[in-house]
Amino acid sequence: MLEADFKYIIDTFFTLFAMVLIIFMVPGFAMLEAGLVRTKNVSAVLTTNIMIYSIASMAFLLIGYTIAFGSWENSSQSIWAAFLFQMAFVGKTVNIMSGGVSERAHMIPLAIFTVAMGAIIYPLVVNISWGADIIAGTMLDIDMYDLAGSTVIHSTGGWALLAAILIIGSRKGRYQNGKIRVIPASNIPLVVLGALLLWIGWFGFNGGSVGSISSVENANLVAKTIMNTNTAGLSGAIIAGIIMYVRYKLFDITMILNGALGGLVAVTAGPDLYDMHTPILIGLIGGALVVFAVPLFDKLKIDDPVGALSVHLINGIWGTLAVGIFIDSVSFMAQLKGVVVVGVFVFVTSYTLLFIINKFFKFRAKDDVQVEGMDVNECGVEAYPEFKRAI
Amino acid sequence: MLEADFKYIIDTFFTLFAMVLIIFMVPGFAMLEAGLVRTKNVSAVLTTNIMIYSIASMAFLLIGYTIAFGSWENSSQSIWAAFLFQMAFVGKTVNIMSGGVSERAHMIPLAIFTVAMGAIIYPLVVNISWGADIIAGTMLDIDMYDLAGSTVIHSTGGWALLAAILIIGSRKGRYQNGKIRVIPASNIPLVVLGALLLWIGWFGFNGGSVGSISSVENANLVAKTIMNTNTAGLSGAIIAGIIMYVRYKLFDITMILNGALGGLVAVTAGPDLYDMHTPILIGLIGGALVVFAVPLFDKLKIDDPVGALSVHLINGIWGTLAVGIFIDSVSFMAQLKGVVVVGVFVFVTSYTLLFIINKFFKFRAKDDVQVEGMDVNECGVEAYPEFKRAI
Amino acid sequence: MLEADFKYIIDTFFTLFAMVLIIFMVPGFAMLEAGLVRTKNVSAVLTTNIMIYSIASMAFLLIGYTIAFGSWENSSQSIWAAFLFQMAFVGKTVNIMSGGVSERAHMIPLAIFTVAMGAIIYPLVVNISWGADIIAGTMLDIDMYDLAGSTVIHSTGGWALLAAILIIGSRKGRYQNGKIRVIPASNIPLVVLGALLLWIGWFGFNGGSVGSISSVENANLVAKTIMNTNTAGLSGAIIAGIIMYVRYKLFDITMILNGALGGLVAVTAGPDLYDMHTPILIGLIGGALVVFAVPLFDKLKIDDPVGALSVHLINGIWGTLAVGIFIDSVSFMAQLKGVVVVGVFVFVTSYTLLFIINKFFKFRAKDDVQVEGMDVNECGVEAYPEFKRAI
Repeated sequence: MLEADFKYIIDTFFTLFAMVLIIFMVPGFAMLEAGLVRTKNVSAVLTTNIMIYSIASMAFLLIGYTIAFGSWENSSQSIWAAFLFQMAFVGKTVNIMSGGVSERAHMIPLAIFTVAMGAIIYPLVVNISWGADIIAGTMLDIDMYDLAGSTVIHSTGGWALLAAILIIGSRKGRYQNGKIRVIPASNIPLVVLGALLLWIGWFGFNGGSVGSISSVENANLVAKTIMNTNTAGLSGAIIAGIIMYVRYKLFDITMILNGALGGLVAVTAGPDLYDMHTPILIGLIGGALVVFAVPLFDKLKIDDPVGALSVHLINGIWGTLAVGIFIDSVSFMAQLKGVVVVGVFVFVTSYTLLFIINKFFKFRAKDDVQVEGMDVNECGVEAYPEFKRAI
Repeated sequence: MLEADFKYIIDTFFTLFAMVLIIFMVPGFAMLEAGLVRTKNVSAVLTTNIMIYSIASMAFLLIGYTIAFGSWENSSQSIWAAFLFQMAFVGKTVNIMSGGVSERAHMIPLAIFTVAMGAIIYPLVVNISWGADIIAGTMLDIDMYDLAGSTVIHSTGGWALLAAILIIGSRKGRYQNGKIRVIPASNIPLVVLGALLLWIGWFGFNGGSVGSISSVENANLVAKTIMNTNTAGLSGAIIAGIIMYVRYKLFDITMILNGALGGLVAVTAGPDLYDMHTPILIGLIGGALVVFAVPLFDKLKIDDPVGALSVHLINGIWGTLAVGIFIDSVSFMAQLKGVVVVGVFVFVTSYTLLFIINKFFKFRAKDDVQVEGMDVNECGVEAYPEFKRAI
Repeated sequence: MLEADFKYIIDTFFTLFAMVLIIFMVPGFAMLEAGLVRTKNVSAVLTTNIMIYSIASMAFLLIGYTIAFGSWENSSQSIWAAFLFQMAFVGKTVNIMSGGVSERAHMIPLAIFTVAMGAIIYPLVVNISWGADIIAGTMLDIDMYDLAGSTVIHSTGGWALLAAILIIGSRKGRYQNGKIRVIPASNIPLVVLGALLLWIGWFGFNGGSVGSISSVENANLVAKTIMNTNTAGLSGAIIAGIIMYVRYKLFDITMILNGALGGLVAVTAGPDLYDMHTPILIGLIGGALVVFAVPLFDKLKIDDPVGALSVHLINGIWGTLAVGIFIDSVSFMAQLKGVVVVGVFVFVTSYTLLFIINKFFKFRAKDDVQVEGMDVNECGVEAYPEFKRAI
């Protein structure tokens, strides 16, 4: 057998394996978001989750992939595997959003935005970061190191979410008379399950982004990448637990899990470059950032029911900059430029588009709809119809 | 290393990978069914699910595999991997049933039927479709193309379920005074989780059915198969959502998920043969069929609490015929003959056997048992004992 | 390509695959334990679960791995993959504990014990069983066959748990006036989901423990190992179901699942050595042992809310001895010696350490804290705040 054939076969298999792990993030996001919102909005957040995942993937298949990469060709592994791996990413950017605007956003305008996100906005981000690079040679050309998408995926989803929250506003009753009303998660086991499935998905996300396992060097790189990814998740969880205990004498499991996810987002830009101890530090900072960012967004009256901005946007930025800080051969300024260019592009296009869509299809559910719950009004299906409500 | 050894190693590994994905369908079916039935029947449907999965697998190990394939030999990969992959299928045929007869069927007669299903009925279907082929050369010989079992798995499970529903009857109170009583799903997050795990399992189901990944051609074929499988699931979900919204202005998440599953069943017969756009159409039709078949079965007073007939039987048939429609080299009549021969065989043997078993061990729980719930009466374990019931 | 390079690549990939399956045991244990405890303690058991998993893994990364294996070198596959695979094990030993001491143990002392378990106690067990072997040549040197850790993982976790239960005592009100108060599981679907994820994880646990898939012989061995693992789980579930029905005319799903897990623990010491039928017997005995051990521990007033001692300790011992019984080339006495040496070491060190920790940080929650629930007092987060309690 030719060595090239061997590599082709192994890398195709490996990419499919990594893709499957990423797809576990679909139930991951779904369960996380279903557990964090109130019972009256659980069916709606799940429906939104599944619909925009499906729409974004289909838009990427029909249009987006070509915009991102220019051609459907790949000589080092099956193009179908390469496509599937890339397609698995696009759903993440919109599922980061579905939780953050939950409990008050209608699905149809979000579905319309999703078409644009999957077909154009996200593919353009990929194009200039990893793909055909239509701005090569221009002043805006970016040269950031972002292995698996701290910026390309997580900040992108985060910036779009921020634009959406600014347009849609906070949930009714969330900020009243200068006070913040705490709305607790309705189903903690689902939150835990969702976060752990995301964690597992990250192994495919980051490991698969190495792009090949078919040489000894790449096999080592893939394994190190997965190890470093995991390490940052561990330290993110640990530091969030410690901070919560020091401040409140209580271990808040939702914060511990968001700490883990924050660490995972942060390490995503360069897990292949770090030695085995650096991710501990990156995760510690990432987890701590989440714990401090969550109340900060609330002070700014930016209402994010699932903490997605703290996890994905803040840590997407931190993680991208971290590569420039910890890796000598990577320029901090190049990282910063990447963060800014992608951030400005995604935020401005998303805000503009969301603003226009909002003129035709109001994003925000009316107050009485919010009070009664999105499930009854948008889905006709209650999440737990046989269970008596305590509140 | 010999090329043959390389292929043997890679294909064994790949088959194990695919098998593991299929096994995720065990929690997939379990969560889907647990979420769709009423809280008073959740423990029972889960118990039935696990017990018949275990019994069917054991029966296939002890008897069924030999009936299906004649010998325990395989020169192209480890026989143990090949066996595991085949064994992972058999549980699906009975778990399609466990949901459809839930809320009124006793476990013991179903367990007895499962022994026959795992040891003889399903293995004979495999024998004539994929295996030793004892009817080769006879008038009944079938020459259908069914890569991963639209007919062999899904219709088989569906026909057996239809026979069971005809014998067991509908749930008490379901059809009264000419009206259909709507019984809502009790736990939507579990339904979503279950459906998504099934979706993931399908990648192994269909991808693994290619049988080998150890050449460049096969690597492409496996990747294309998984891509096409996924595409049909996406379009099935999207069309179900659109139809529900057009008809009711509501997004019913259970229907959207069943639409996705319908698309997945439909593409299963030929995902390796289609170009990248055909599965979109197959999934659109598959998802639409589910949306229209669910109320149709109710009009016929065929009570299927989880929509399994619409998903597995109807789309199993559609998917098998679709190969004959869309692929020039596949004969539509051969596909139709396969559907009919397998359908008649499974329905007649299942009906006969279920009828006989029903004489000795009544399948149908008495009315008061149904009212009180199967959990208390069959398991002694309530699913959610600490939660106060609203209804 | 060099054959050695091919093997290196394939085995690294395979170990990563197996590792990922084991990591599914993290949500597996979490969901199992969350489903088995009362709703007022669900957040706490989940928090404990995640925190001690993270701490044990980090301790193993920083200290434990070096103690177990002496050096960070591996020439047959990526050291990072080999490390990840080993690290995935350590969390199991502490997560076996978190369920068994749930509903009355504080997290901080358990976290402190976890540091010792992940950094020293478990690594020393690995050292003398699979690793650098610091007691080679001494009287205590053990020569037990334990492929994937019936003793090294499961009994180790079990002995530590037994020590913890003896120090912490039973839940308030569990044994009163000579009677045993039955405390039912609060969420059966989570129990089922958790058990099935553990089952899937076992394929990686045992299959990966073969250590290599890169020869025809090893490919067969891996596949046979996974098949035998699965078979024991099936027969464990079936026998538990049969015994429950014979004794109580009821199918208790928690017992059926613990029967499956008991069979899986029991087969873990030698799944590569058995023919395809022996695991049926091992699983039958393993499942039966669980059914009889659960009430026995209750008679002894050893309060184990999740049945972890019956599953992991009893079947860890049975499984290790079974290799000596069924495999001619393995000495029964060597197996027994391994069980005793590891058991005495783990129990004595754990008991001593837990006893000392308990002097400074009381493990046991006060009665009123137990009555109110650990969630409110330890986490500040209720698991299901919107659901009205029935009891």
